[in-house]
Amino acid sequence: MRITILIMRNLKLIISYDGTEFQGWQTQPGFRTVQETIQKHLEKITNQKITLYASGRTDTGVHAIAQVANFRVDSNLSESKILLGLNALLPDDISISEITEVPYDFHSVKDAKKKHYRYVIRQSGISDPLTRKFCHLVKQELDHKKMHKAAQQLIGTHDFRCFESEWPNRTNSIRTIYRTSINRMGPWIWFNIEGNGFLYNMVRAIAGTLIEIGRGHWPEDKILELIELKERKYAGPTAPAKGLFLVRVSYEDLTP
Amino acid sequence: MRITILIMRNLKLIISYDGTEFQGWQTQPGFRTVQETIQKHLEKITNQKITLYASGRTDTGVHAIAQVANFRVDSNLSESKILLGLNALLPDDISISEITEVPYDFHSVKDAKKKHYRYVIRQSGISDPLTRKFCHLVKQELDHKKMHKAAQQLIGTHDFRCFESEWPNRTNSIRTIYRTSINRMGPWIWFNIEGNGFLYNMVRAIAGTLIEIGRGHWPEDKILELIELKERKYAGPTAPAKGLFLVRVSYEDLTP
Repeated sequence: MRITILIMRNLKLIISYDGTEFQGWQTQPGFRTVQETIQKHLEKITNQKITLYASGRTDTGVHAIAQVANFRVDSNLSESKILLGLNALLPDDISISEITEVPYDFHSVKDAKKKHYRYVIRQSGISDPLTRKFCHLVKQELDHKKMHKAAQQLIGTHDFRCFESEWPNRTNSIRTIYRTSINRMGPWIWFNIEGNGFLYNMVRAIAGTLIEIGRGHWPEDKILELIELKERKYAGPTAPAKGLFLVRVSYEDLTP
Repeated sequence: MRITILIMRNLKLIISYDGTEFQGWQTQPGFRTVQETIQKHLEKITNQKITLYASGRTDTGVHAIAQVANFRVDSNLSESKILLGLNALLPDDISISEITEVPYDFHSVKDAKKKHYRYVIRQSGISDPLTRKFCHLVKQELDHKKMHKAAQQLIGTHDFRCFESEWPNRTNSIRTIYRTSINRMGPWIWFNIEGNGFLYNMVRAIAGTLIEIGRGHWPEDKILELIELKERKYAGPTAPAKGLFLVRVSYEDLTP
């Protein structure tokens, strides 16, 4: 008789990536994706089949400052060894800043309590070669104070299907937004938004709508009207992916 | 009898570029260079042979926030028309922020009074995919205050051949440095240097030397010693091009 003990550990990764050259997070045969790129190298290091779950699937071209993902593995390699090995193998448009062991039932998608996205706009008549892959160039003047006020209407629990591409994608389009802000420094205007979750293309549709408000095409209270209307076609265009960053995913319980 | 009047104008350009995909400024057959890329489009717009002179030839991989160049042309196309046409034709890793007519004898190389370069270091154990093309990653801890003090020894008029690659390149390696500083914010350490001119690879050799000082390999007064020694081999390594930015070129007379 032979007894084999499998010690399955659950490891959580914090991941940064430049989304420019990826077809988004999720594995798709024939495409370069973040998930497939990391999985492939994890399989090399651990010599096992790995499935990596991210807090959310970012789209083609979207960047991440701190995406969170987890995977289960039967390996006693230390976290720091995996971290070192992985960063050595990964291409330079992905890096892992942290690997920690988490409880076996932790799941980066289901347990995510809060996500923070940022959308970066450059308001200028002339594009900037040095930052062109990390912002959306808007040539018209934008009133960022008006955009900030409009963004406050997003706060609360609403049915956000007016900002969801290709609706109906999901059964439930109700989400809670905790905080939004628009700041400006010189040509840079950035939009921060935190919520318990986001629908497909929601942040980019909101950014596109706020730009329409900022350039005076729509009034400040347009957001409330759109939420009422519940149809994607009335909201602004989906702003380009390259301006969008997944900043942080929180897992702590939000009750005070 | 027929009289042709040629009205040659001298136009000054302010140019930004992401140096990553260029073999530097200067035209070289078979390579993608900034000079050749801009000239080619200027020739299309003006229908004339154009020679573009830059304040200095940046190397392969070096970036520019505001490079200055000039060219002479027999054309009455307005500056704004050339600017618009050029930006429309140029690839997205170059942009022109300004075109102005300058006196016929203005020369962007000979008349440059002051140049400002910046060298950007990221001090971190982990690389950052989002900024990897615009900084030099240093994994060792760096004492930026010590680096700042050391950099002050560069100020003044010195024979800087100890920081010049492949010396002797030039007959005169005496330059004047007006101002240097090292600042830090989180993982970012940036080195600013202003002088009346710089030798080949000089800023990168200084950056490499300051890194050696910052990580404690050399004492704070090493710079003075190197200037005395007058030999490149004693100074630090040439830091990578991707951390270097040409920030500004000044043409005003510097007398107060």
